[in-house]
Amino acid sequence: MGTCRPDAAMPDSRLPVAVVATGNELLDGRAADTNLVRAARLLAPAGARIVFHVTARDDIGAIADAIRLARPRARVLIVSGGLGPTRDDVTREAVSAVARRPLVEHGPSLVRLARRLPRATAQLAIQRRQALVPRGAVVFPNPAGSAAGFALRLQGCWCVVLPGVPREFDAMLSRVVLPWLHRRGLLRRPAFARALTFCGVPESVADDAIDRLGIPLHGLEIALTVHEGIVKIVLTSREGEARPSTRGRDAAQRILELHRALRRRFGEFVVSAEGRSLEETVARLLGRRGWTVAVAESCTGGRVARLLTSVPGISASFLEAVVSYSNRSKIRRLGVPAASIRRHGAVSVPVAEAMARGAARTAGADVGLGVTGIAGPGGGTPEKPVGLVCFAAWARGRVETAVRRFRGDRMEVQERAAVAALDLLRRMIV
Amino acid sequence: MGTCRPDAAMPDSRLPVAVVATGNELLDGRAADTNLVRAARLLAPAGARIVFHVTARDDIGAIADAIRLARPRARVLIVSGGLGPTRDDVTREAVSAVARRPLVEHGPSLVRLARRLPRATAQLAIQRRQALVPRGAVVFPNPAGSAAGFALRLQGCWCVVLPGVPREFDAMLSRVVLPWLHRRGLLRRPAFARALTFCGVPESVADDAIDRLGIPLHGLEIALTVHEGIVKIVLTSREGEARPSTRGRDAAQRILELHRALRRRFGEFVVSAEGRSLEETVARLLGRRGWTVAVAESCTGGRVARLLTSVPGISASFLEAVVSYSNRSKIRRLGVPAASIRRHGAVSVPVAEAMARGAARTAGADVGLGVTGIAGPGGGTPEKPVGLVCFAAWARGRVETAVRRFRGDRMEVQERAAVAALDLLRRMIV
Repeated sequence: MGTCRPDAAMPDSRLPVAVVATGNELLDGRAADTNLVRAARLLAPAGARIVFHVTARDDIGAIADAIRLARPRARVLIVSGGLGPTRDDVTREAVSAVARRPLVEHGPSLVRLARRLPRATAQLAIQRRQALVPRGAVVFPNPAGSAAGFALRLQGCWCVVLPGVPREFDAMLSRVVLPWLHRRGLLRRPAFARALTFCGVPESVADDAIDRLGIPLHGLEIALTVHEGIVKIVLTSREGEARPSTRGRDAAQRILELHRALRRRFGEFVVSAEGRSLEETVARLLGRRGWTVAVAESCTGGRVARLLTSVPGISASFLEAVVSYSNRSKIRRLGVPAASIRRHGAVSVPVAEAMARGAARTAGADVGLGVTGIAGPGGGTPEKPVGLVCFAAWARGRVETAVRRFRGDRMEVQERAAVAALDLLRRMIV
Repeated sequence: MGTCRPDAAMPDSRLPVAVVATGNELLDGRAADTNLVRAARLLAPAGARIVFHVTARDDIGAIADAIRLARPRARVLIVSGGLGPTRDDVTREAVSAVARRPLVEHGPSLVRLARRLPRATAQLAIQRRQALVPRGAVVFPNPAGSAAGFALRLQGCWCVVLPGVPREFDAMLSRVVLPWLHRRGLLRRPAFARALTFCGVPESVADDAIDRLGIPLHGLEIALTVHEGIVKIVLTSREGEARPSTRGRDAAQRILELHRALRRRFGEFVVSAEGRSLEETVARLLGRRGWTVAVAESCTGGRVARLLTSVPGISASFLEAVVSYSNRSKIRRLGVPAASIRRHGAVSVPVAEAMARGAARTAGADVGLGVTGIAGPGGGTPEKPVGLVCFAAWARGRVETAVRRFRGDRMEVQERAAVAALDLLRRMIV
């Protein structure tokens, strides 16, 4: 799941934040809590870190209990969810109970609510609960929805209450709450940080390399994550940039040294020295050369196309993909020689190469990419087991091929093969 | 995020479980905690429910603190993560501290570890920590990895400690821990449950319909989730089936009545009366008819193909997809008339229809599906705004078309349009 090597000897100057997530759906398997990940990513560059997280049922007692547990563990407590109009939405009542302050109607929020409702009166009776806040709370308007957020002080800790809908949670945290925390002087200026993305380097090798570079690591936080074969390293100084002590500047210098040394050490395996994703990197490389690309994919079933088309503006470079699940499709659409399939099998390097050439030629693209393999669970043989995938990239006459064996279930093989295909393309056009 | 209407008046007979997740990567934005969702889904049909969840840093004190908070709130406590061989892996030390039992080496686990290592001696020195368990603990072998799990009693609560790697966590929970809890008599037999999947019905409409059917809901748990336009309802009895009280049987009967009434009420919007996903349902419908399908997709960029190819065995029905990002590709690959694109624009119903027909004809498939739209963020006009998507399905001469406008960012438009395309196909071949 990734490793992180904090330096226990260094004090951490970042603002400690606790998070209370509310919602039965988070505990009964209906929904994953994605707010925590995004909150952490918004808070980290602002110089804050999450130190504690608890999930509570939609129940006044359970939420109040969670708030009481989290409060003494941080200076800011973010409570998310349970601010809607239905009877399950009881977060404001729980906060009111813990703070011992009655709920009062907030006039401006009621006016905003009324404006959002098409037929005011009937709906407003149900919805007006969303304008209630504990007496004396700071009220935050919601730029993306109807329920207002609010903050109030609980014995030395600011308790910030936000809607749980991800879009509203993000909008309020980034556009309203973070600026407010800045104004109150709770956040320092962002910590100095650099990121680096690799493909084809095991996490343990990257981690080990950092130790062997001989650069002192005190005062730095080194976070490694791995996702579908992409390793991302984020190097962060634990000192804010606002008051650059000798120590802080030194940390920033060592981050730049580490960043440079890692680039040199891993060379062609470095996808991006700015922490960009693989698909963004490929899109930028194609754009810089003014080249177009076409894809022929079999076992990845559209996942290579999906990765590329997730990048806005890719239509300038990406012409088309053919997802060929049958031999007939490979032969007719892409001009793969039937003899080649007979002789080598549909999952083979010659067929992958013919697919890459065929994709480029039939689409009139500068670059072609071919992927063919066995995603499983069925279809494997002793010679060609489940997880075996053949790749080819063709770029204006040059060809590169690769064969890989992926472990995991059908979905893991499909997703990792799509990443490996894009990385082969990246290496050809970098 | 989904609603759930528990009945506060009814006692809950399910086993209360608390979860402590450990790992800095869960708190600093590097990884989402997916174990919680999957644990809840494995526990629910076994008659258990998660009542409390807390995330702790990789720190002995923080993990011990979290265990002390969670223990009195449940009868079983699952602690995940921190059992690996590196210095961040301190969960066993934290459990040992809370239980006041020293760590001892577990012989059979050490033997298993040694067998897994290619070159035994050098590696074993680093890895052998993984064979340590608190004295007197019940040790669980790991069917999918190297670190053993274990359980020990903490004042009336069974504390079960498992590796955090999702594949290992799942394998141990489902294949080792749940059977063990059954044998100890902690789990009842599964609760009676029925599921239903819809497409095209807003969550609030489905929720409202349940109230209006006039079937008493006491003793039932009604869970609604919505994901990319698919609403799933799970109806569960709060009484285990093991000791069917009059009340329990009655709840099961009312679940069957509700299930039947909802199927009748929503008719063609029902994707599956067994809770199957949309793509599984489409794959089954195609398989039952022995029909083949080809896809022509533009703005969805491979996502329709990806959904279909996520189903094992789909190669019997799915022939190919063409991801046409350029007009040229639509004309040359699919035979879309250039005049039609000129007259109506690439995003139009006539072009979607020509894409569906062209996909089926050129692939020799029984069924063709066409999708063309504007995913954004750029490319919108007042007449054809971002989020506008045109669909067509062609099945042996019959054609159905649809136009939809989706809200949200590029990814949301792409994913929801792919789901809507498959649903149009489902309706044609059901």
